Amino acid sequence: MESLTFVLFGSTGDLAKRKIFPALYNLYLEQKLPRTLSIIGLGRNKFSDDEFQQYVENSLNTFSRRKPEDHASVAEFISYFRYYGLDAADKEGYKELLKLVESREKELNIPQNRLFYLSVAPEFFDVIALNIKESGLGNTKGWKRLIIEKPFGHDLKSARELNEKLSKSFEEDEIFRIDHYLGKPMVQNLETLVAANPFLKALWNNQYIANIQITASETVGVEERAGYYDGTGAIRDMFQNHMLQMLLMTAMHLPTPITPQNIRNQKSSLMKSIRRIAKEDVAKHVVRAQYTAGKMNGKPVVGYREEPGVDPSSMTDTFIAARLWIEDFFWREVPFYIRTGKRMAEKCTKIVVEFKDPLQDLQGSKAAPNLLTIQINPNEKITLQLNGKNLLKNGEMESINMDFSPASDNIPEAYELLIHDAIRGDASFFAHWEEVEQAWELVQPILDAFEENLVPLETYPAGSYGPEASDRLLAEQGFKWWQDEEKADQKELSVTH
Amino acid sequence: MESLTFVLFGSTGDLAKRKIFPALYNLYLEQKLPRTLSIIGLGRNKFSDDEFQQYVENSLNTFSRRKPEDHASVAEFISYFRYYGLDAADKEGYKELLKLVESREKELNIPQNRLFYLSVAPEFFDVIALNIKESGLGNTKGWKRLIIEKPFGHDLKSARELNEKLSKSFEEDEIFRIDHYLGKPMVQNLETLVAANPFLKALWNNQYIANIQITASETVGVEERAGYYDGTGAIRDMFQNHMLQMLLMTAMHLPTPITPQNIRNQKSSLMKSIRRIAKEDVAKHVVRAQYTAGKMNGKPVVGYREEPGVDPSSMTDTFIAARLWIEDFFWREVPFYIRTGKRMAEKCTKIVVEFKDPLQDLQGSKAAPNLLTIQINPNEKITLQLNGKNLLKNGEMESINMDFSPASDNIPEAYELLIHDAIRGDASFFAHWEEVEQAWELVQPILDAFEENLVPLETYPAGSYGPEASDRLLAEQGFKWWQDEEKADQKELSVTH
Repeated sequence: MESLTFVLFGSTGDLAKRKIFPALYNLYLEQKLPRTLSIIGLGRNKFSDDEFQQYVENSLNTFSRRKPEDHASVAEFISYFRYYGLDAADKEGYKELLKLVESREKELNIPQNRLFYLSVAPEFFDVIALNIKESGLGNTKGWKRLIIEKPFGHDLKSARELNEKLSKSFEEDEIFRIDHYLGKPMVQNLETLVAANPFLKALWNNQYIANIQITASETVGVEERAGYYDGTGAIRDMFQNHMLQMLLMTAMHLPTPITPQNIRNQKSSLMKSIRRIAKEDVAKHVVRAQYTAGKMNGKPVVGYREEPGVDPSSMTDTFIAARLWIEDFFWREVPFYIRTGKRMAEKCTKIVVEFKDPLQDLQGSKAAPNLLTIQINPNEKITLQLNGKNLLKNGEMESINMDFSPASDNIPEAYELLIHDAIRGDASFFAHWEEVEQAWELVQPILDAFEENLVPLETYPAGSYGPEASDRLLAEQGFKWWQDEEKADQKELSVTH
Repeated sequence: MESLTFVLFGSTGDLAKRKIFPALYNLYLEQKLPRTLSIIGLGRNKFSDDEFQQYVENSLNTFSRRKPEDHASVAEFISYFRYYGLDAADKEGYKELLKLVESREKELNIPQNRLFYLSVAPEFFDVIALNIKESGLGNTKGWKRLIIEKPFGHDLKSARELNEKLSKSFEEDEIFRIDHYLGKPMVQNLETLVAANPFLKALWNNQYIANIQITASETVGVEERAGYYDGTGAIRDMFQNHMLQMLLMTAMHLPTPITPQNIRNQKSSLMKSIRRIAKEDVAKHVVRAQYTAGKMNGKPVVGYREEPGVDPSSMTDTFIAARLWIEDFFWREVPFYIRTGKRMAEKCTKIVVEFKDPLQDLQGSKAAPNLLTIQINPNEKITLQLNGKNLLKNGEMESINMDFSPASDNIPEAYELLIHDAIRGDASFFAHWEEVEQAWELVQPILDAFEENLVPLETYPAGSYGPEASDRLLAEQGFKWWQDEEKADQKELSVTH
């Protein structure tokens, strides 16, 4: 693995402290970092290198999944770090930064490979990219890469403008857009599960699959992020990026050979074949809702409009449910139901694949549909629900649940896998511009319909599974959401009782 | 459920004591017997009714899966029983028996439904059936049924003669031939598993299945049964009946509507489509072997020829492996590998379905084939082996094992399910004459080839998985037996390490 300089913008921010430093440290412990590495943290604070290194060490003690024990290794790890106080708009500062980067490159005798990580507010993305170019930081003899966090634009127009600006300083294949859902191990496993198992591969199409349900529900409310969230809503915060990426990962048929470029093309053409929804039709296929006061674990909680920092007349969606159709050879006529929301009954991210009904094969049987459930959060689990007969109930049909749960200790965090990929230059699990642009093209009419109030704002009590309208979305095709509490109700089949 | 008289020949024998009485008692506890019932035990011993009832109660205390606790219920249960000392050849005795049966019918005021259970040595089958007819026991105003234990004949000729004789006294649909493997809950579940699960149904054919392996291995040797076994061998004791029945249950596509008659026809036509093996070709497709001295759990054990009661030059097969082909639309070109033996490494009855290789889909992947394992003994279990990638090994492929194990307490014994079916008149899980005759037609050339020594008698050390020749049988198509110890080796996939 080639050595590099890791330039971190926003190194005194929350994400760096909670995710990026711990991710780098765990990669270091697993020897997945280059043998020599230069990490330069940037921020507005005044920090000496020593203070910064101490700051990094503190973050590990608090947030790393592996706590630092062996002092020598921690000492070596933090010795990679330098700090430079930089105002993102200060052109002179970038020239100084360049000198620092180059002196470290000489000092450590490493090639001019430079990874710029933008862990800052979106309004700084373009100015930073521009200054990297103009200061000469971007003119390297080695490679350069840009890691950029969400949100990538606020709507289609702003996303295109942002990309336009970034593309002046970085090529598309130098830009690594982080969607941390793509870093979750079970999500990264999705495509392989299907491709590597003829057992699943043979069934992964509209001949056998009745519908696919993708849920990401949170129990938390808006918390301290009201300022950001109230102008964003579930559709921008979750739907346009994470939910659509999970849809792609579920529906994708893995290309051969498996290369980042082929995966990019595959995802892009899949995204293209999602049926567009005209502004006038959004209300038919999309449900937006806002939580009202309710109970979480028995305790009363306020509604969204009562949350501190939220406009009491806010029309922001804290819940989105949508029915999408992929118009391709494999998925035509298979509805994809997607929902995400805050203050819901359970914290759960999962994909439920419902297979077509067996009733036609066994008259009068009470067979339930076969379900393949891939749970991503809170713990990883794959469950297959089949039917068997209970021989103590005269062969009455009952559900069999076959489970697989990976050992859940030491699951690598999404940021470890993604940063490791970015360092190696593997863009497979990052969001590419084509996808991002197409996602915004799909979402823009929905944003417009919301803006113009063409879609009623439903409500749901905190602690529920969302508004009734979300159930109706499935009922129109004769389906229903498979909730965990229902699956809990189903007794496991015992052929004995 | 109609009341009946249950006439048990061989009521002082081993099977009655260990299986039949306990089965009836557990059906009684589950209220699966008619409200009034007359049970008449027959045997050569001299027993008073009281002595016999006590004998029955003792057998429950020793062998019933539910031990008698509530004394009142046991008292009522054994009150059903009467005993009559009968010599199977004594025609006068049957007339006396008829009087007893009729007097109990009057006394209990139950219809003339008579179930005759032949739990006796095969040489008595025909004489008993004949005397039932001639004594008038068979002329009932209600229904009459015959339950008969294996072996049904010693070869094709003797089986036909036996059936010829039985058919003088009973219609085919009055004859319930017990193959207790058909009573095992998981075997009874097989056809439903496939039919009720589109997930499996779609894959249950030669397009997706590479081969099917059916194993019934015992760790015990010949034990005290040498006298019977040395003239029988694995092929008659296990292969001609149990193994072929499991093959049928695995390969059968459930008919609609599901009626005993349709199932009978389905199984019969499936049996017809098993490719016959000419005597000269038997050595190519069938392996016979005998165990030699070896070790079981570290303890040395003698070879078959050293077993007490076994001819030191015996050519009897204690192990059989065969490769069969079903020439029908679904199974053409899917080899069915069947093996059964004594003194093998593990006690296990299982069916392993190996799906076609995924390698073509993922170049360079180390993906193992998908396996669906249905374990029938020692405990019931369904396992599905899939592939996933290990993200801490750079996405290297590993096996995922999804399991389902029914609650294993209080599993009903095969005899409970079968006797309950016979009482209700449901012949679905009994061996019908067409199947039995066709099974003998298939096996006869193998018997002849063994007789004429056209097939080498291989050997295998006690405690092994059988002779190498059995592995070669699969290797010829590029396959291997999936042994449990290997599967144990495969670490469960953890996407974390």
